[in-house]
Amino acid sequence: MDYIEQEFSVKFDYRVYFTTALFNLSNTILDDFFCKKKSSSSQKIFFVIDQNVVETHPYLIEEISSYFKKYQTVHLIEDILIMPGGEVAKNDLTLFNKILNAVNFYNIDRHSYIAGIGGGSVLDVVGYAAAVSHRGIRHIRIPTTTLSQNDSGVGVKNSINYFNKKNFLGTFAPPVAVINDEQFLKTLSDRDWRSGIAEAVKVALIKDATFFDWIENNADQLVARNMNSMNFLVRRCAELHLEHIAGGDPFEMGSSRPLDFGHWSAHKLEQLTNFEILHGEAVAMGIALDSMYSFLSGRLTEEKAERIIKLLVQLGFEISHPFMEIKEGSDILLGLDEFREHLGGNLTIMLLRDIGIGEEVHEIDIPLLIKASQQLKTYSEKK
Amino acid sequence: MDYIEQEFSVKFDYRVYFTTALFNLSNTILDDFFCKKKSSSSQKIFFVIDQNVVETHPYLIEEISSYFKKYQTVHLIEDILIMPGGEVAKNDLTLFNKILNAVNFYNIDRHSYIAGIGGGSVLDVVGYAAAVSHRGIRHIRIPTTTLSQNDSGVGVKNSINYFNKKNFLGTFAPPVAVINDEQFLKTLSDRDWRSGIAEAVKVALIKDATFFDWIENNADQLVARNMNSMNFLVRRCAELHLEHIAGGDPFEMGSSRPLDFGHWSAHKLEQLTNFEILHGEAVAMGIALDSMYSFLSGRLTEEKAERIIKLLVQLGFEISHPFMEIKEGSDILLGLDEFREHLGGNLTIMLLRDIGIGEEVHEIDIPLLIKASQQLKTYSEKK
Repeated sequence: MDYIEQEFSVKFDYRVYFTTALFNLSNTILDDFFCKKKSSSSQKIFFVIDQNVVETHPYLIEEISSYFKKYQTVHLIEDILIMPGGEVAKNDLTLFNKILNAVNFYNIDRHSYIAGIGGGSVLDVVGYAAAVSHRGIRHIRIPTTTLSQNDSGVGVKNSINYFNKKNFLGTFAPPVAVINDEQFLKTLSDRDWRSGIAEAVKVALIKDATFFDWIENNADQLVARNMNSMNFLVRRCAELHLEHIAGGDPFEMGSSRPLDFGHWSAHKLEQLTNFEILHGEAVAMGIALDSMYSFLSGRLTEEKAERIIKLLVQLGFEISHPFMEIKEGSDILLGLDEFREHLGGNLTIMLLRDIGIGEEVHEIDIPLLIKASQQLKTYSEKK
Repeated sequence: MDYIEQEFSVKFDYRVYFTTALFNLSNTILDDFFCKKKSSSSQKIFFVIDQNVVETHPYLIEEISSYFKKYQTVHLIEDILIMPGGEVAKNDLTLFNKILNAVNFYNIDRHSYIAGIGGGSVLDVVGYAAAVSHRGIRHIRIPTTTLSQNDSGVGVKNSINYFNKKNFLGTFAPPVAVINDEQFLKTLSDRDWRSGIAEAVKVALIKDATFFDWIENNADQLVARNMNSMNFLVRRCAELHLEHIAGGDPFEMGSSRPLDFGHWSAHKLEQLTNFEILHGEAVAMGIALDSMYSFLSGRLTEEKAERIIKLLVQLGFEISHPFMEIKEGSDILLGLDEFREHLGGNLTIMLLRDIGIGEEVHEIDIPLLIKASQQLKTYSEKK
């Protein structure tokens, strides 16, 4: 057999910045970054902003314009694209196409920038459009929700929905920079503020028992919207998330996706409720279910499963939902198969062996899962 | 300034196989490969085949079907998609969508395979559809032309055209395997057979003087369609191409693209002639132009420029064309700017310092380029 073996590694590096008031004229983070990456005199930047952000930050566009009048390292394309936030952004192909149109119309080349400012959905669409235009335009993420600042926004994935299937189209394409600006968190609704905390509980549960303790001890401050507590939480989550990507399988070539603890049912629940349940809210229920299952299947002590569920309740999350009351043949169970299918290979589900320690399994005992969901319902009714 | 530095490398590896009669029941290359990569019992394979190949190899589909009846490591999806070859495949979004439809309809997951059999254009479309479906389904390339076997097919790029712009959408996504089967070369037209030799001359000129000598010494055998000579040429080109990718900047994050020697005018010429000139034919003219310019700008000796042009003529290539008779303001000059724009950053053009040694420049002297094109026209008329 005659063949040539091809082997190479591609190195990626990017910074995740933590700041406040990014476009304040005295804040040089963005311009310093452009100076460092300068490759020609014709570099441009195109902004796409989540409509929710523009509504809660009415001066944002003016601030951006003033910023690039002062700092001229790259040329601002004044025509800023505003798109609806939330899952609708990922369902509507015309929004994706609007970004491609701008790339074409403004001759945005691969050394120019496309910056997305918004929640995870808007960043997903912007990231995907940037990744496939000219085989990849430099992409800057400016996440504006707790969820995107501590989870999806710092990662390497992008996507849009297609054929009514979540994330059917997408790529792995690391951004060139992520900038987490706490200003954007201040104007979030309580639901959006809380939603991101679910991903913090998740990453603590599979990776860091000390961080889990910290969330327990700071749950009341987090609920009371204490910004220092939230800043600590966002930063620690981002660290854990980034460490995981760098140390693992960044482009998910294997069958394992540990960061998706609690997500097989959450994804399906979002879809079944037509995305009326927020991602973090669904993840909280998914965590509750898989923690209870971890206990019933003999992996986790009852006391620890109860601690987890108690924390979720204390943070203000629901831990049960009519679609999560599982019976033989419940729609939510389709989530298991869709989860396997999206990644490929054998079913691989993360459970808990302890707080801070995950364990991957390849089979789920449905009667036991039904029992777990019933116990959660009972717990939920008692509280 | 508070930030986290994220750094990681992603490793890619794939084999480029050289074989004959891949789907002969005694040829185990493909099944051996599937056994090595086996990850579950539900892996499928979906084939997309270039219509030109089906026409010249009428038994191919039957052979594939028989092959997967014998070797059942992965499950063949019997519904094989046949699509028109050539640039039209990249212009027609419905062909791209047909592949996505199949991914959806047949539930092709990320550990399953999409295999493309065809020329570079078909492989580009199939590669792009595979790369963005579920963020990347395993992709096998089976190139069927000299051009795709020695150049694009062994590389890591894919694309489709959009907004009438060549390769506007695409990604860098290494295949999991490339299989070069000499059987497919036997049925090529003389034009298609010759076309791939232009990329061999190109890679020899920038990387390997000994290989250039070999092409000179074997030009007559290549023209006479000697298969041993072509096999050597394809293999050496693939080696040089793969070494270049592995040793350089595989995902083209910089501004340099050495393998595109002779290509700035070639891409534009293809478009100006509505793709009636084949890619390799255009590249031959682009090589002639940039070699002559390398001589006139004092980089290359006249004797060496003449050797290059003589070889191209001996191989049967035209070295001039009405669109390549450059004047101030000629359309072909737009190719320089489009070349810069596609990659981004400053203009970077590869020229020759010697046979086998390239030199990058960032400026082109237009009057000198005009003179180079005139000398080529004169040479072309004399021959």
